[in-house]
Amino acid sequence: MTKAQYGLTTIGNAIVDILAPTTEEFISEQAKNGMARGAMNLINAERALALYDAMGPATQASGGSAGNTIAAFASFGGKGAYIGKVGKDELGKVFQHDLNSIGVHYNTAPVISGSHTARSMILITPDGERTMNTFLGACVELSPDDIDAELIQNSSVTYLEGYLFDPPLAMEAFYKAAKIAHEASRKVSLTLSDSFCVGRHRKAFQELVENHVDILFANEEEIKSLYEVNTFEEALAIVKNKCEIAALTRSEKGSVIVTKDAVTEIKAEPVAKVVDTTGAGDAYAAGFLFGYTQGKDMATCGKLASLAAAEVISHIGPRPQAVLAELAQKKAA
Amino acid sequence: MTKAQYGLTTIGNAIVDILAPTTEEFISEQAKNGMARGAMNLINAERALALYDAMGPATQASGGSAGNTIAAFASFGGKGAYIGKVGKDELGKVFQHDLNSIGVHYNTAPVISGSHTARSMILITPDGERTMNTFLGACVELSPDDIDAELIQNSSVTYLEGYLFDPPLAMEAFYKAAKIAHEASRKVSLTLSDSFCVGRHRKAFQELVENHVDILFANEEEIKSLYEVNTFEEALAIVKNKCEIAALTRSEKGSVIVTKDAVTEIKAEPVAKVVDTTGAGDAYAAGFLFGYTQGKDMATCGKLASLAAAEVISHIGPRPQAVLAELAQKKAA
Repeated sequence: MTKAQYGLTTIGNAIVDILAPTTEEFISEQAKNGMARGAMNLINAERALALYDAMGPATQASGGSAGNTIAAFASFGGKGAYIGKVGKDELGKVFQHDLNSIGVHYNTAPVISGSHTARSMILITPDGERTMNTFLGACVELSPDDIDAELIQNSSVTYLEGYLFDPPLAMEAFYKAAKIAHEASRKVSLTLSDSFCVGRHRKAFQELVENHVDILFANEEEIKSLYEVNTFEEALAIVKNKCEIAALTRSEKGSVIVTKDAVTEIKAEPVAKVVDTTGAGDAYAAGFLFGYTQGKDMATCGKLASLAAAEVISHIGPRPQAVLAELAQKKAA
Repeated sequence: MTKAQYGLTTIGNAIVDILAPTTEEFISEQAKNGMARGAMNLINAERALALYDAMGPATQASGGSAGNTIAAFASFGGKGAYIGKVGKDELGKVFQHDLNSIGVHYNTAPVISGSHTARSMILITPDGERTMNTFLGACVELSPDDIDAELIQNSSVTYLEGYLFDPPLAMEAFYKAAKIAHEASRKVSLTLSDSFCVGRHRKAFQELVENHVDILFANEEEIKSLYEVNTFEEALAIVKNKCEIAALTRSEKGSVIVTKDAVTEIKAEPVAKVVDTTGAGDAYAAGFLFGYTQGKDMATCGKLASLAAAEVISHIGPRPQAVLAELAQKKAA
């Protein structure tokens, strides 16, 4: 096997986030429109306009789970690539800029249909929890044709977000990418993304984890939902035998990394104030995979993961504002 | 005189900020393109594209000096209005949303020329200082026709940014607004905006302050530049006799409020870490004018001003992310 040119290629829904602090009352009121607190809610174009009118002032930042992960991976100094679909519009240019400007290889062709770049209206309650409301727009047009086989073959790890199972063609693209990666003896990584997303695609995700995934990321709710069990310990006992590595996050309780041979507990990195949890899991995966692709042990991978997550939750917005390579160096010193 | 319907109407260049952390090296390199560190640099469309390509990942947030001021004024609970020109595009909608959603009256017609909404690429060095690079776009089309006389007559204070002197028609709009306000026995307030801007329009600004301005905002560099003196004390002695109130800011040294009768020194509000100074002066003016329109004494106005500035410099982005009315209440308790 030749040395991979890229440490990590991530594939996901290319989304620009519209982030706004909000109140618990606003989230409660919006329940009548189907908004589930703390979840990623899929909405249509009409609802997107109505919600934007109803919500408070916002800031805009490139997002998308896998996009956030590759941005944080690059911030650690990793060489990365991204596959995802934007529209031919201002937000699409913003998304492209924010990856290219940190050295991430990104050249998926934008849609020619006139669909707009996806946007997620992210409402942040005073506890820092985010409730996402996503209009997928151009993302539903990501297809197997967008999977650059040569790129996947040249990446140590290909990382896929569970959210890709929502648009049907993207799911096909997902399977194609996983197949190419394994045929090239590369690793495949998956994040379960969201417990509601797991609910929508449970059987497919179980099969995926068992047969196609080497490194799994999930939070406590997601892994419990995947195996329909009541406790974290039960979920952990099951997942242990399903893939090579499972990195399971538990918010302020830290995380647990499970392999066939060992269970490694990682403390959460302390944060003065949790401002916005958007992107926490994405940054965690980035830190872990940066360590992994550098050949680090599980404890070190976990520490880098926690460090990245802590940076991202200390400000509004889903991607690092500090240089993670510098933070990691300071921490090590 | 009837009671004003609005506490404050602000008029300015309607701009969306594109904010990016950067290095001192990047700013130094860009000096060859005419970029002055810490200043508001005006750039053309071509340079805007080239700079965007060269700069790092960014977040987008509604900005514009007077826009930031009215947003912070509304966050204190004040009733405000705004006049400024955007394009018929996505960024224009964002700008409009971010004012309307906090209850600010804003109905200036967007341009019909096809010009884009103004954007400012704001580069933030590790010390929190911001260097702005502004493409004025649609702002150059703000004209006297956009001044809503009834609105100005119904505002206790009309606040104008010095930056309006850069586009020639906007300058005319500025004079028209000031005249309407005074004819209705309302107050006129001005911020000098930027020491380079003062350099471009010194004579006009001196005449303005002397004959048309009741409440002046300036930082140390701006007021020294206005009167071409070397020390803050000299500038203070001059400005004292030129307008009713001058509120002069000195970064971490706090601020000084000067009237004919008294000089009130205000301490800077402590901040754990200065992340991004963008909007600090705008927020200061908002806090001061909120106190002023509520009939508070100079010391209280100054404290509200410092409180608002401290909130804004503690995160990336030029407008408050917390509710200033709540911060003020906590501080008073």
